[in-house]
Amino acid sequence: MSGSNQLRQSVALKRRPDGEPRPDDFEIREDLIPEPAAGEVVTRTLWLSIDPYMRGRLREEQTYAAAIQIGEVMTGETVGEVIASADPRFAVGDVVSGARGWQTHSVSRGDNLLKIDRAAGAPLSAYLGVLGMPGATAYAGVTEIIKPQKGQTIVISAASGAVGSIAGQLAKRAGARVVGIAGGSEKCLWVQDGLGFDDCVDHRSLDLARELKQACPNGIDGYFENVGGAVQAAVFDQLNRHARVAMCGMVSQYNEAVFPPGPNLGFVVGKAVLIQGFIVSDRPARFTEWRALAAPWVADGSLIYREDIIEGLDQAPDALAGILGGRNFGKMLVRVGHDQA
Amino acid sequence: MSGSNQLRQSVALKRRPDGEPRPDDFEIREDLIPEPAAGEVVTRTLWLSIDPYMRGRLREEQTYAAAIQIGEVMTGETVGEVIASADPRFAVGDVVSGARGWQTHSVSRGDNLLKIDRAAGAPLSAYLGVLGMPGATAYAGVTEIIKPQKGQTIVISAASGAVGSIAGQLAKRAGARVVGIAGGSEKCLWVQDGLGFDDCVDHRSLDLARELKQACPNGIDGYFENVGGAVQAAVFDQLNRHARVAMCGMVSQYNEAVFPPGPNLGFVVGKAVLIQGFIVSDRPARFTEWRALAAPWVADGSLIYREDIIEGLDQAPDALAGILGGRNFGKMLVRVGHDQA
Repeated sequence: MSGSNQLRQSVALKRRPDGEPRPDDFEIREDLIPEPAAGEVVTRTLWLSIDPYMRGRLREEQTYAAAIQIGEVMTGETVGEVIASADPRFAVGDVVSGARGWQTHSVSRGDNLLKIDRAAGAPLSAYLGVLGMPGATAYAGVTEIIKPQKGQTIVISAASGAVGSIAGQLAKRAGARVVGIAGGSEKCLWVQDGLGFDDCVDHRSLDLARELKQACPNGIDGYFENVGGAVQAAVFDQLNRHARVAMCGMVSQYNEAVFPPGPNLGFVVGKAVLIQGFIVSDRPARFTEWRALAAPWVADGSLIYREDIIEGLDQAPDALAGILGGRNFGKMLVRVGHDQA
Repeated sequence: MSGSNQLRQSVALKRRPDGEPRPDDFEIREDLIPEPAAGEVVTRTLWLSIDPYMRGRLREEQTYAAAIQIGEVMTGETVGEVIASADPRFAVGDVVSGARGWQTHSVSRGDNLLKIDRAAGAPLSAYLGVLGMPGATAYAGVTEIIKPQKGQTIVISAASGAVGSIAGQLAKRAGARVVGIAGGSEKCLWVQDGLGFDDCVDHRSLDLARELKQACPNGIDGYFENVGGAVQAAVFDQLNRHARVAMCGMVSQYNEAVFPPGPNLGFVVGKAVLIQGFIVSDRPARFTEWRALAAPWVADGSLIYREDIIEGLDQAPDALAGILGGRNFGKMLVRVGHDQA
C-alpha cells in the first residue's frame, strides 16, 4: 500500500487572478497521501501538463467545464506511476495517463486511467503532448474541420506550440502549403527548419498583414486558430471562398477581464466560410485513434515535437503564466517526480 | 419573332447608393427589344424578384459575385414568357425562370433557363419565392447546416421573410421547437398563427435578450441568420453547446458604409459552435431537388408563403429599399408584365 504517513503536496486556487496569473494566486497545501477506495488507484505524479485552457477554469463563469472553486486543487493532465491500487487492472509500478491535478499524488477511478506501454519506446512526457491531449486536438481539428487538400494554403497560429506544431505537420502530410504564425524569430526559424513548414510569419512584425500576404500569395484555404486578436483579424481578411477555420483557442485574450469585439461576420456569408469550435474531450475515440496512429511516427522520428520543461510542482503557476504570455517554446511540462525505472 | 421595333425598358445603376438605395440612384433606359442569336431566348418579364443580396452588388468591392458597374442593368431573377427563341428547346409562349435583369425583356442563353410547368398548379410568382432561390436557400441552410433534431430549439431571424418563413417551417417539420424573430407585432402574429412557429419575438422590443430567453427556456440549438447586428448578438449569447448557425445574410448592415465590429469568437471555442456561411448558387443540385420536393407542398397548401407585390418596373428601386428597411411583408416581387394565359 502507499506510504499513508507520507505527505503529498497540492496546488490550490487561492484567489481568481486579475490578468496574468501570479504565484500568489495559488497556495501549496499538504495532506497525507490517501489510501485508494475500491476501484481507485493512487499515482505518484511524474509529469504535469500545463495548457492554455487552464486559464478559463480560473474565471468565475463556467465555460465548457466547471470553474475551479477557490480552495480547490487545480486540474491538469498527468503521467504518473501507480503506488497503490484497489482496481485489479492496475498494479504498483504501472505507468498511467489520465490522473488529474496539480499535485504530487492523485487518487483516481481506474476507469479514467490509460496504461502506458514503456516498451513502445516513447518518452513518458510525450503522452502529455504529441501523444496526449494537444496531439489529439491537432488531429481532430485538422482531419475533422480543416480537411486540407493537396495544394491548398493552410495557416497555423501558435505554430511552435504543442498543438500548432502537430497541426501543421499533419497539414503538410496531406500535401498542403503550410504557413505558421509564431512569436519571434527563434520560434519562426524552428517552425520552418525544424518542423518543415513552408513559411512562418512573426506576429510581432510591424506589418503582419503584408507579411502574411507574401507568405500566402494564393490566399488562405484553412486556418487552425489558437490565438485570436490581431492574428485572427489578419488571417480572416485573407481567407478564400469556402475557407475552413478550426477554432481551437484564443490564447491572446485569456488574461483579459472583458473580451474585445470580434470580426464582423459578413465575410462568413459572402465567402461561404465555415468556422467551427471543437473540444477534443468531446471525442474520446479520436484520442485513442491518434495515439495508435502517431506512436510509430514518434518512434521513427518523423513527427517532430519540442518540450519546455520546468522542475518542481511549485513552479506550475509560473509555467501557466508563461504559456499565456507565449514565453514557452514547445509543450510546457512540469517535472513533478522523477522516473526511477 | 419578337416585335423588333418595340421598345424595352431596363433599370440601370446611375451611381452607387450612399446608405439606403434611392430611386435616383438608378435610371430607366429604353432600347429596341433584341433579336435572339443562336442558342438564345428572348423573354417578356412577368415577375421580377427583389432580394437583399442585391444591395451587395451595388458596393464597389466584389463579394461572391462581381459588383454591378455604373451604367449596367441591375441583376435579378425573373419569371418570363418566351416571345422569341433561337434555342430549339424553347417555344414562344413557354414560361421560364432563370432569365435575369431589371428589365421588361431579357435575352438569355437557353442553357440558363428552366421551363415552368403551368399544369403543376403553382402560381408563376411562386417560382421566385417559395419554389425559387429563397426557398432553395432555406432548404440548403436547414438541411445541410442546422440539421434540426426533434426537441431542439431553432431560432429564425427575418422570420416573416421569403427565406425565414420557409426555413422555420422546415425546422418544424423536423420536429424542432421553432422561434421566429421579426419586426413588429403584425409580422410576429403571422409568424405564429399563419406559419405555425411556436413563438415569435419582436426585434423592436425594448429587451430583446429577455424576451428571447423566455421564448427559448432551454437555450438555442440552431440559428438561421438573416439579420446580423443586435439580433445576432442576442441569439449568440444564448446558444447551447454544439449549436449550429447557418449564416445566410446580415441584412441589418447592408446599407452601412463600414461594417461594425462583430462578436468576440471565444464562445465558438468554448461551446464548440459551428458557424457556416453558404450561398445557394454554389448548390445547383439542391435547387432542382427543392423544387421537386416543395411543389406538392405548395399545391396542397401545407407550405405557407406570403408575397408582397408592387406594380411596375419603375418601382423596383423602392422595392429594394423597402426590403433593406424591413418594410416588406413576405416575398418582395415586382409585377413587370401581365400574364395573359
